[in-house]
Amino acid sequence: MLRSFIEVSPESHFPIHNLPYGVFRTRAGGTARVGVAIGDYVLDLSVLDRAGHFRNTAVCGKEVFSRDSLDAFMAAGPAAWHEVRQIVQRLLRADEPLLRDNASLRSAALVRQNDVELLLPVRIGDYTDFYASKEHATNVGVMFRGKEQALMPNWTHLPVGYHGRASSVVVSGTDIRRPRGQIKPADSSDPLFAASSQLDFELEMGLFIGPGNPLGTPISIADAESHIFGLVLVNDWSARDIQAWEYQPLGPFLGKNFATSISPWVVPLAALEPFRIEGPPQEPEPLAYLRTTGKTSFDIQLEAYVQGDGMERPERICASNFRYLYWSMAQQIAHHTVGGCNLRPGDLLASGTISGPHRQARGCLLELTWRGTEPLVLKNGELRRWLEDGDRVTITGWCQGDGYRVGFGEVTGRILPALP
Amino acid sequence: MLRSFIEVSPESHFPIHNLPYGVFRTRAGGTARVGVAIGDYVLDLSVLDRAGHFRNTAVCGKEVFSRDSLDAFMAAGPAAWHEVRQIVQRLLRADEPLLRDNASLRSAALVRQNDVELLLPVRIGDYTDFYASKEHATNVGVMFRGKEQALMPNWTHLPVGYHGRASSVVVSGTDIRRPRGQIKPADSSDPLFAASSQLDFELEMGLFIGPGNPLGTPISIADAESHIFGLVLVNDWSARDIQAWEYQPLGPFLGKNFATSISPWVVPLAALEPFRIEGPPQEPEPLAYLRTTGKTSFDIQLEAYVQGDGMERPERICASNFRYLYWSMAQQIAHHTVGGCNLRPGDLLASGTISGPHRQARGCLLELTWRGTEPLVLKNGELRRWLEDGDRVTITGWCQGDGYRVGFGEVTGRILPALP
Repeated sequence: MLRSFIEVSPESHFPIHNLPYGVFRTRAGGTARVGVAIGDYVLDLSVLDRAGHFRNTAVCGKEVFSRDSLDAFMAAGPAAWHEVRQIVQRLLRADEPLLRDNASLRSAALVRQNDVELLLPVRIGDYTDFYASKEHATNVGVMFRGKEQALMPNWTHLPVGYHGRASSVVVSGTDIRRPRGQIKPADSSDPLFAASSQLDFELEMGLFIGPGNPLGTPISIADAESHIFGLVLVNDWSARDIQAWEYQPLGPFLGKNFATSISPWVVPLAALEPFRIEGPPQEPEPLAYLRTTGKTSFDIQLEAYVQGDGMERPERICASNFRYLYWSMAQQIAHHTVGGCNLRPGDLLASGTISGPHRQARGCLLELTWRGTEPLVLKNGELRRWLEDGDRVTITGWCQGDGYRVGFGEVTGRILPALP
Repeated sequence: MLRSFIEVSPESHFPIHNLPYGVFRTRAGGTARVGVAIGDYVLDLSVLDRAGHFRNTAVCGKEVFSRDSLDAFMAAGPAAWHEVRQIVQRLLRADEPLLRDNASLRSAALVRQNDVELLLPVRIGDYTDFYASKEHATNVGVMFRGKEQALMPNWTHLPVGYHGRASSVVVSGTDIRRPRGQIKPADSSDPLFAASSQLDFELEMGLFIGPGNPLGTPISIADAESHIFGLVLVNDWSARDIQAWEYQPLGPFLGKNFATSISPWVVPLAALEPFRIEGPPQEPEPLAYLRTTGKTSFDIQLEAYVQGDGMERPERICASNFRYLYWSMAQQIAHHTVGGCNLRPGDLLASGTISGPHRQARGCLLELTWRGTEPLVLKNGELRRWLEDGDRVTITGWCQGDGYRVGFGEVTGRILPALP
């Protein structure tokens, strides 16, 4: 059995099977560099690189791990990722003495996670947000347009998506300022300017693009997965009242672009391979450029928690699963590029809210409280229609293996009051 | 009268009054660097910098002109821009001997425009496209929703905008590949996969952000213009048939993201000051954060030309003006950031299609041919409903001074056939 000389509890998200990449600096100071999470530690890849452990790989001499983003490593492509992962996994094995028995290298390369600050791991060029959950799109459609025309006619033919805002993607732990903006009360024909009172989270996952494609040259669905470096958790914060007034006809803008949070550890696609499963059946059959077979989805359990100012601990309000997504990541990439749009290393493609067939699997408050009409009753008796100042939302996710978990850690953020 | 020792014809877009910034390399080879257009020449600022001409400015020692983008100079802010512009303008004056009489400096610093390749001048972080022309929004609304509800209720209250794709912004001269994608014929309930047959241009202008704002801290309308570095021409290529099928409910995606072209010279706001005018009256009065008075617009004449494969010369199909824009640039910036969204140096904010009150001032084929129902008849007898393979679209624009023009040069691109 694969085991590390570093002790890792069965509930840890970061066993030797996972080895996600992140960017960190020590709290004691020092520059940003790339590391891998293992148990409660970070393995500093810039130290291993300087010690020559990657000298026979494609990244040799490129100093891709001494940077403040993963972009250069992501651009290196799947063969390089495979080489590095093999080396790191071997160095961490219980039966491999190279790092285990080298006290000075261990002390230079292993840092406790408690002693580091995790940074935004990627310099994101463009951020795209899809709308790939049928349950989510249906629920939202029922609320806004009624049951008969819940799904737009295009929805079952293509993965609907839109361009998001890259500048306001922040790393987990960043406080979120409640936005102000134009809001039109139902009983008025004119908008007013106010703080959003319908602040929401969205439980999503996102993929990071490794090598991109030249402008004008689509990525085929067969090649699409080779462009995926890895996945993170995403909370696409949303101000529903601002969004409702602004979004026609060109889509969401200020209702979304005040902040999007991501988890700090990017889980490589290789770590998710044991958890591949088939996605939902697709009917009608997609057009040829979107057609695919086999296990295109992953069994990733997802949960969202809220903790208000007066609550002793976080309370789970949602349990969903990545497998519910109708449109696969490969389909998202093939669609995104079919007209020639170029993706670049470090681009983020998020899934949209991941809701499932059960009530508890609804991935945002808009659905969980049915637009505020059915408030959640928390264990301490408080009601939640929308997020309140001081609320902390935490999303977590993991794949359950036999005696271990390949996890994503968490993405968390706390709501600050609006500016006066 | 302000005059350069370099001869500049009255029709030139680049007299000493203008001095737009661009990034170039010589066709003979060499690295990318920053230059200023003057008449038929480029003045190489990296040469002037090395010769010490900017030693008393805020950019001294920062090598902002030896780079492949304007971003670092843009981030330096209005005081630095003013210093540099003063120095460059003085050096180019007819009555200033410093450069005029220094043959070796002249030969090192002045390059004929014919001998250089102009590059994308900015590394664009995020690209936002507004919808700020009332005539354009109204025309499109009438076509798609009828006269009664042509303008959405939000349109007169806020500058509607959406996030565009930064990766596919290209510099003038880049060929544009006709995109393929999902298109739903009117007589079918299912889409098919085909090359776009409704390819269009959009006559727009864009502003580049200099210093940005921290996430969570809006830019007030009073401060907004101090964040504008300069302006370019924009052609926001559009595939109307792809867009029509995909855009609900989250806005345009593949119908737009295959390419957006910009002109290579960024005209500083300072050069446009003499051409300030009032914008159109705004009724209803905007909310306080969007309220502004005085001359918030500019008198910039805009034209679009098309030249098909069989045409001897470009033919003008549109004459519009920046002054028709309903929402000002300051209003766009104040709105964009009012919820806390952060802008960064190098962000591009485009205006949306600039149409005017006359038929000839319609800024795209969608309007000019009324969705293909009233084709343009070109001088050689050809019809144009939409762009055809081989068509070259060129947009130009200038402010007319007394005996000189402050111009934007042009943004041009030619349509390549779709991939087989």
